[in-house]
Amino acid sequence: MKIVECVPNFSEGRRKDVIEKIIDAVRAVEGVKVLDYSSDPSHNRTVLTFVGEPMAVKEAAFRVAEKAAELIDMEQHQGEHPRIGAADVIPLIPISGVSMEECVELARELGRDIGEKLGIPVYLYEEAATRPDRKNLAHVRRGEYEGLKEAIKTPERQPDFGPAQMHPKAGAVAVGARPPLVAYNINLDTDKVEIAKAIARSIRGSSGGYPSIKALGVLIEETGKAQVTINVCNYKEVSLARVFETVKSEAGRYGVNITGSEIVGLVPMEALLDAAAFYLRLEGFQLEQVLEKRL
Amino acid sequence: MKIVECVPNFSEGRRKDVIEKIIDAVRAVEGVKVLDYSSDPSHNRTVLTFVGEPMAVKEAAFRVAEKAAELIDMEQHQGEHPRIGAADVIPLIPISGVSMEECVELARELGRDIGEKLGIPVYLYEEAATRPDRKNLAHVRRGEYEGLKEAIKTPERQPDFGPAQMHPKAGAVAVGARPPLVAYNINLDTDKVEIAKAIARSIRGSSGGYPSIKALGVLIEETGKAQVTINVCNYKEVSLARVFETVKSEAGRYGVNITGSEIVGLVPMEALLDAAAFYLRLEGFQLEQVLEKRL
Repeated sequence: MKIVECVPNFSEGRRKDVIEKIIDAVRAVEGVKVLDYSSDPSHNRTVLTFVGEPMAVKEAAFRVAEKAAELIDMEQHQGEHPRIGAADVIPLIPISGVSMEECVELARELGRDIGEKLGIPVYLYEEAATRPDRKNLAHVRRGEYEGLKEAIKTPERQPDFGPAQMHPKAGAVAVGARPPLVAYNINLDTDKVEIAKAIARSIRGSSGGYPSIKALGVLIEETGKAQVTINVCNYKEVSLARVFETVKSEAGRYGVNITGSEIVGLVPMEALLDAAAFYLRLEGFQLEQVLEKRL
Repeated sequence: MKIVECVPNFSEGRRKDVIEKIIDAVRAVEGVKVLDYSSDPSHNRTVLTFVGEPMAVKEAAFRVAEKAAELIDMEQHQGEHPRIGAADVIPLIPISGVSMEECVELARELGRDIGEKLGIPVYLYEEAATRPDRKNLAHVRRGEYEGLKEAIKTPERQPDFGPAQMHPKAGAVAVGARPPLVAYNINLDTDKVEIAKAIARSIRGSSGGYPSIKALGVLIEETGKAQVTINVCNYKEVSLARVFETVKSEAGRYGVNITGSEIVGLVPMEALLDAAAFYLRLEGFQLEQVLEKRL
């Protein structure tokens, strides 16, 4: 079975009735399952996760954009998190039996529908980007809703689909395709946050480490210990095992040990099986050997 | 969803039409899926694997016993592998959402049905055993079909269900419950099979190692290298990671390295996730965090 995940972020994190109506629009689509959602009032933003077969997911994602445009007025929106529109960002993620290429195609079809049927300007980003400078979502969102009102009229900021002017209430939307992200924290047996920060710098792309890794060093209040908090943005490129071993090696330079690690939220089975295969030195292992894959 | 696996071994590995008719009896049960089967002509025996919800699996297992009794005549059976009956051994294995206790109960219900409805003597073994000396399948099968004809009349060999005499064609059957077995081989960078044999002795229960581990040292013809070939009979008791690390440590005593390992056939997802969790030192990890478990 082909399974695509969709994690739309929309610009409402306070009004429960609005949040529920948008999620209900997803629940109403047959063949789609809502896995999780969380709203942040200070960001005034909700992150929703659902999965299903490609066509059902595309339909549900379209309805998020449609319902958000109906119920959210960006002229009234305030929140700490950068955003350009009501349905701010809609990534499609291949999970099972689907290639990245298929998700890119699906994102472009979804973008076309949103642009043409809802009259909302659409920017394609990450793997679905049509220009190199639009791969990076932060770059697509620069200036945010307020700044984009004027900038959208320039050739450089012309949207991929829809009109070259902001939708009067819904603004614009970024639609993309990307690998699954694993939120992964590694705990150290030190109270020196500088060590966690130094390790984070050594592994993250922004300071010369792995391009698909984002990382910060933080001090955990409850334990008084330092932690490297990591986004593994492409586990097929840089695996959990490689991240763990690199952090272990860097920590060793300070005489610091890893006490444990944590996976926050959901993780694709393959990301963990890759770690098992790495450490057990598995040869010729196929995902189809996993009993649960046969059910 | 509750998933039970059943791996009946029946005493026919040569006549294709008989083998197919017995497997068709399983396929005819709704809610059961045949995952695999393999027939060995010299053993004159077939190993069948199917899965499904508990009640459907019990029904399909009953039909294996029924069909095997109809089509196999133990008076005519010859083969290298030890056996006591047509449907020789029927283990039930908890896979997902099912406890061992539930599988034991299911095995006893299945045994009662086979004994009462088919008139075949049934011995409960492993986790389902009613006496300590029947835990070990080899002990239940001692004397084989031919020897059990007389021995069954003694109090010690009285079956758990059914008549205290062999079924005239089908003989007897062992019905049990056990954890999933993982067939796991570890390859060494040496051509000295004695080293693999010594390592096997150090880890297997029969020579003082882990009680749930069976192991042999062999020389692989294709590679000319030694291998420790292992049955991990209870991965919750002794994990793949512990087996790997013990073999690694023992091999180190001879200056020998592990070049790789292999999983033969199917493996429960949890057995590999446990290995990932061990090496990544995962804290508070729940199986429900695996995305595929939510679908």
